[in-house]
Amino acid sequence: MNSLVIRNVRPMGGDPTSIIIRDGWISGYGEEVSEGAEILDGAGGILIPGLVEAHTHMDKTLLGMDWYRNDVGPSLLAKIDNERLQRRVLGIDPARQSARQAILAASLGTTHIRTHVDVDTEVGVAGIEGVLETRERHRDLVEIELVAFPQSGMLIRPGTVDLMEKALQLGAQVVGGLDPAGIDRDPKGHLDVVFDLAERYGVPVDIHLHEPAELGAFSMELITERTKALGLQGRVTISHAFCLGMTDQDYVAALIDALAETQIHVLTTAPASRPAPAVKRLVEAGIVVAAGSDGVRDTWGPYNNPDMLERAVLIGLRNNLRRDDEVALALDICTFGGARMLNLADYGLEVGCKADLVLLEGETLPEAVVSRRPRKLVLKNGKVIARNGAIMSAAA
Amino acid sequence: MNSLVIRNVRPMGGDPTSIIIRDGWISGYGEEVSEGAEILDGAGGILIPGLVEAHTHMDKTLLGMDWYRNDVGPSLLAKIDNERLQRRVLGIDPARQSARQAILAASLGTTHIRTHVDVDTEVGVAGIEGVLETRERHRDLVEIELVAFPQSGMLIRPGTVDLMEKALQLGAQVVGGLDPAGIDRDPKGHLDVVFDLAERYGVPVDIHLHEPAELGAFSMELITERTKALGLQGRVTISHAFCLGMTDQDYVAALIDALAETQIHVLTTAPASRPAPAVKRLVEAGIVVAAGSDGVRDTWGPYNNPDMLERAVLIGLRNNLRRDDEVALALDICTFGGARMLNLADYGLEVGCKADLVLLEGETLPEAVVSRRPRKLVLKNGKVIARNGAIMSAAA
Repeated sequence: MNSLVIRNVRPMGGDPTSIIIRDGWISGYGEEVSEGAEILDGAGGILIPGLVEAHTHMDKTLLGMDWYRNDVGPSLLAKIDNERLQRRVLGIDPARQSARQAILAASLGTTHIRTHVDVDTEVGVAGIEGVLETRERHRDLVEIELVAFPQSGMLIRPGTVDLMEKALQLGAQVVGGLDPAGIDRDPKGHLDVVFDLAERYGVPVDIHLHEPAELGAFSMELITERTKALGLQGRVTISHAFCLGMTDQDYVAALIDALAETQIHVLTTAPASRPAPAVKRLVEAGIVVAAGSDGVRDTWGPYNNPDMLERAVLIGLRNNLRRDDEVALALDICTFGGARMLNLADYGLEVGCKADLVLLEGETLPEAVVSRRPRKLVLKNGKVIARNGAIMSAAA
Repeated sequence: MNSLVIRNVRPMGGDPTSIIIRDGWISGYGEEVSEGAEILDGAGGILIPGLVEAHTHMDKTLLGMDWYRNDVGPSLLAKIDNERLQRRVLGIDPARQSARQAILAASLGTTHIRTHVDVDTEVGVAGIEGVLETRERHRDLVEIELVAFPQSGMLIRPGTVDLMEKALQLGAQVVGGLDPAGIDRDPKGHLDVVFDLAERYGVPVDIHLHEPAELGAFSMELITERTKALGLQGRVTISHAFCLGMTDQDYVAALIDALAETQIHVLTTAPASRPAPAVKRLVEAGIVVAAGSDGVRDTWGPYNNPDMLERAVLIGLRNNLRRDDEVALALDICTFGGARMLNLADYGLEVGCKADLVLLEGETLPEAVVSRRPRKLVLKNGKVIARNGAIMSAAA
């Protein structure tokens, strides 16, 4: 039996204790004797469960590549077209790039990732294959879930639906969609295909919905209707959901009710320049809210990095969460919220949970979040894989 | 003559060269011989002029103090009242705290600061005296300009105007104001006092304007009218200016015209949770736009730190500035924009400018901004005061 004890840790910033880990699972807290166990000193660090990156695009990050000089036009379609072009021009290899992001994310304490992988008539399923390779190669660092994501549209690019099926057959675990009106220009048609794939392959759904205000609200209604009709409660995520930030508060209230009723999850990146879901209100309505970094340093933009503590800060800034309990809520979205969205079994700090853990240096939990220091320890499956912000050489 | 040459630096990310500094001033670039000069290797770093922190509150940061557990109510007045209370309860010493922020800011490459210092009937001018002490003690690290700031209102707290005068007599260089309708409940009365002090003491004006939409717009009109009537063009700043983010675009356009005509500067913190001025539009209209961190880890909120490169990133995120030239604009607001607002003489990288400089590690200028690494070198008045993110022990 493989045992590890980390002494002097403070679970969620509470009282100091020891955590006992056996064969990758949390087996207890306190002064339990554990013969032959490896002993580590937590030095009073704050113990939290692994950070959950619930929305990113690992196949197309430019991490580690030459700086990409961005001079792209402002429209969504211009960015999508440019990205397909740059994939060839720059030689963005999905396996190599997703591996770089996986390692960086793991060093930052992310233990689970949902990544949306482009599927289109140019790249085919090469992106899926590349990220699947990373998923296997780095499975001891981080767990990766793939969404087959039709970034360039499905109905407007014949052949894409077949490729989506192929992606699901290869091992993508979620079917993606995006802007049913905005991109495919056919909200009913787009969503019927997405939900048909979900039914036939028995996979969850995750739809990028950037559509603004009343247009996005209409698409959201179509999604809630299908979720209810097909009995997919708890299996559907709407990412971005900018329409929940619209001004018509009565309409927003009705949408929130519908989301709560159909147990649809909401994923936010907490964008500063767009209307956005009010996370506290959603959580109070019983909706699972998770967070993601979106594209990390890619042809869309330069700012994002995969640090989910920085994301918690951005959630706090976007939602004006200033009190200590509110900062804790922002972190909760980046941990437990993501875990619920990804339907992770055995996630958390309870005895019996998997030992996917992060030890933070900090005075209090909110202080550790806002300070975003290098992570003291990151454990995946009970093994230390990173220390003081750097991946252990044996792990990568 | 005191000479320093830094070899292999890239001004604004351009071609590598050497910079020659004599007696605190930039005396040339290139292969100029400089007998007896100290020689440093810039290692290809990117040279920019010193970062300008154009709006903060150094007298009341909690940096270095025990974590403050924030459970304050959401209203502006609740935050103001709580802050006066905590000043006594926590023992927030303005000299000690402003010194901590000055040293941290300098280590991050900030060479100039405008700080708003509370003046009210409880603290009197003790805050001003404390920050003046820091201004003198750390003048070799960073230049500090003080605004006499009536945070708790002027007309609603009799005696405050006298204290404001005293603050200006003691050495505050700018007269502040805030929310003439929202706090003092008398927009005409409040602004008449502010502008009267500006005239009598010959000092610039900086008014915090959080008032929303049409209310803020009305206060802004009152400010532009007084600026024009008193010939104070170029001497007035409106901080925050949330009303410029309101939905009535015709009204916004009229306000921008009035600001441009009266040469009023706009200061933004790029708040993610509030309507905010669109910085690109203001710059295109010829308005000076500067940026600040606002309160750094204080009783108002935990997130802000005084890193002006992080502020540039937040400006970029808030204003959706994705292209390389747009990231450069965000940095320009945190350098040249602040310098123009503070009316700094001899600021910049030109020969003849003061050698207030920062050397950044980075591939390109935008890459250096978004990566926010520790600053390789910070120079104040031609002297290296920080290296790799840490203040030189002799400097502090």
